[in-house]
Amino acid sequence: MQQINVGIIGFGTVGCGTFEVLTTNREVIANRVGAEVVVKRIADLDLESDRGIQVNRDLLTVDAMDVIDDPEIDVVVELIGGVEKAKEFILMAMEKGKNVVTANKALLAEYGSEIFEASERYGTSLGFEASVGGGIPIINALRRGLAANRIQTMIGILNGTSNYILTKMTKEGLPYVKVVQDAVDLGFAEDPPTLDVDGTDAAHKLAILISIAFGSPVSFNEIYKEGITDLTPDDIRFAGQFGYSIKLLAIARNLGDRLQARIHPAMIPKDHILANVNEAYNAIYLEGDFVGPNLYYGLGAGKRPTGSAVVSDIIELARQTRVGLKGFMPPLAHVRSPDKKILIQPIEELTSAYYCRFSALDSPGVLSKISGVLGDHHISISSVIQKGREVNGSVPIVMLTHEALESNVQKALSLMKGMKILTGKTIMIRVESG
Amino acid sequence: MQQINVGIIGFGTVGCGTFEVLTTNREVIANRVGAEVVVKRIADLDLESDRGIQVNRDLLTVDAMDVIDDPEIDVVVELIGGVEKAKEFILMAMEKGKNVVTANKALLAEYGSEIFEASERYGTSLGFEASVGGGIPIINALRRGLAANRIQTMIGILNGTSNYILTKMTKEGLPYVKVVQDAVDLGFAEDPPTLDVDGTDAAHKLAILISIAFGSPVSFNEIYKEGITDLTPDDIRFAGQFGYSIKLLAIARNLGDRLQARIHPAMIPKDHILANVNEAYNAIYLEGDFVGPNLYYGLGAGKRPTGSAVVSDIIELARQTRVGLKGFMPPLAHVRSPDKKILIQPIEELTSAYYCRFSALDSPGVLSKISGVLGDHHISISSVIQKGREVNGSVPIVMLTHEALESNVQKALSLMKGMKILTGKTIMIRVESG
Repeated sequence: MQQINVGIIGFGTVGCGTFEVLTTNREVIANRVGAEVVVKRIADLDLESDRGIQVNRDLLTVDAMDVIDDPEIDVVVELIGGVEKAKEFILMAMEKGKNVVTANKALLAEYGSEIFEASERYGTSLGFEASVGGGIPIINALRRGLAANRIQTMIGILNGTSNYILTKMTKEGLPYVKVVQDAVDLGFAEDPPTLDVDGTDAAHKLAILISIAFGSPVSFNEIYKEGITDLTPDDIRFAGQFGYSIKLLAIARNLGDRLQARIHPAMIPKDHILANVNEAYNAIYLEGDFVGPNLYYGLGAGKRPTGSAVVSDIIELARQTRVGLKGFMPPLAHVRSPDKKILIQPIEELTSAYYCRFSALDSPGVLSKISGVLGDHHISISSVIQKGREVNGSVPIVMLTHEALESNVQKALSLMKGMKILTGKTIMIRVESG
Repeated sequence: MQQINVGIIGFGTVGCGTFEVLTTNREVIANRVGAEVVVKRIADLDLESDRGIQVNRDLLTVDAMDVIDDPEIDVVVELIGGVEKAKEFILMAMEKGKNVVTANKALLAEYGSEIFEASERYGTSLGFEASVGGGIPIINALRRGLAANRIQTMIGILNGTSNYILTKMTKEGLPYVKVVQDAVDLGFAEDPPTLDVDGTDAAHKLAILISIAFGSPVSFNEIYKEGITDLTPDDIRFAGQFGYSIKLLAIARNLGDRLQARIHPAMIPKDHILANVNEAYNAIYLEGDFVGPNLYYGLGAGKRPTGSAVVSDIIELARQTRVGLKGFMPPLAHVRSPDKKILIQPIEELTSAYYCRFSALDSPGVLSKISGVLGDHHISISSVIQKGREVNGSVPIVMLTHEALESNVQKALSLMKGMKILTGKTIMIRVESG
């Protein structure tokens, strides 16, 4: 049987997961590729830490160039994370004609154009299944299974840590800080989990999904993002009373000439299939013009699921290597059109329904003043909850609006900040009908 | 731009859907393939019916050989349905070196071995994404995205009609016959929908999923099947009281040396993601040894979703044709091992929890007699519901058992048939913990 050689750069969690998949399932993989897939070299600066797995020491090197320069290595797997060094290694490997696999979402979100262009220029293939959705083969679905469609909508739960936090807040009624502390203590979240909870990680992933769905890299900085740190168990409970769950959603909508691209907490109907995605699970819901609604669900992170995704790319590239095929498909699975620019709609121009929770004085006329300001900004109210429970002289007034223009909502809320009837910060959450 | 020619045999619902996708999204598809994909010929015995779409009459022929024999046609798409004729056309097209796409689940479930073997012998490629799960790209996921895994469990809701019927029965509390009649009247179900409701259609699809997941065709007749015709709104309501939903599930479990392969109504916990798959939607839940739990969800039938799946195969084969690649991947995405035989566990050897609903006389000692017989067969009871509501002198006694051996349950129920305390048929439903 023919042998395909793999070199791994970066032997941390995902590197170990990848190695474990390739060794544990070696026979299954050989059967699916039609060739033996063998790890020939592993580069990492740290060769001393105990990783809890058996590795032949001869495979190990501290020098990434021992992988990149090895003419017998067919597939180079970049798993060091970070941006600059990873980019350098990937570009060098491509220049040597290697097929490359990476799980590096930050790199692809920020320097996708450059990497994708280089891959095509050198005629090599690039796999990046593991960069979005952990073990969920969503990149493969977009590049192949859904390729007949114009993608109209993508709504993702793309960050497992924040979904875990929101699930706990929902099920146990606990405040954000308490849940985060528990998650950190249990090792489920980084300390502090800033990029997870502020939407950055989800924005990286959404940028990649958009690139593939629409065939052109998106400018990462134009993706609107808002995190979950201001959410309270009160808002989750009120949302429930209106029939909604709160999730951190990554949303892309094709408006024809422009695209919505935004990450923020959102209320979604409880019977929507995304509302039932809990714990550390990820899911991508999407609609194509022919396929209609689709959902892809699985574990969004972790050594084993991410290893599964990395090795799915290795298998594909090994299959291509076996038959001597190079650069079979461009990274975005589109003929590249460098002049094609995806325009993103500014968040101010969004039309949406909104949930607003005001902390107001418990005195007559308050509701009328608030709804007056909203009315002045063409925002009409569809439901209100106002229930006693006075705390320090203030009561929550909770409203759902009909569809309104975001800039109007922003203006109205900003105007209300100066009003004496409001005793605290107003919470605004967008409502997605799904 | 290079041109790839497609010939379609069978211009019914799916044929029209395929044609519509290829024409409506022609530009998108060309961009994703790197070549124009053009329908060169369409064969159908009926050229007169109004299909509601614009087709150049020069494309049409009544003779399938005009497609199969055309040397300019690269991809032959078989969409006539049925078994014998379809098989003949596919084998002839393969012999001519054509790549073939089919949506024919009955054919692949019953004659898969022969078709897969021929595809490899002639060195052509075979796409059959549309044969399972309508628009859901589950075949692609198994062949590529999850290829690094040993698949341990697959649980599918694979028949949209029966899922629609069960959803209506659940939400509206209506009896089976009423819901079926409504579905037929509305055109949502065939009249009568026999193959949908008796489990045959789901069994065809499960046979195909198993073939790909485990790399070898399964003997279709060995798949256990049981339909939904005996289910009642009472059972659905009782299931709800125990915290379960009832779905028609297609289940494959890898036991190491053998495989479970069975279709039957089953109770599944309400918070399992499959329990939230309603209406005509399909879903495939699966677990791989590394990826963990995954779910794929979408519309399981219909012209547009099925067209999307057929064209995803056409796109893949067109990409291969563009670079002159033939027979890139075997149909099951495994090196073929003709001697490998998948052994299926007989249903009698299943270990499961069970729901039983007895119709019994409303008299003292009945519960003790029933549980006595169960106990004699090593079946222990985990919960019982016995609520008055006498109808014609009989009451329902509903039980959930702990795990028990199916053959014991069958024996116990068969023994009870002769007992005078039972006034009607006993309903048995297996419980899946998921």
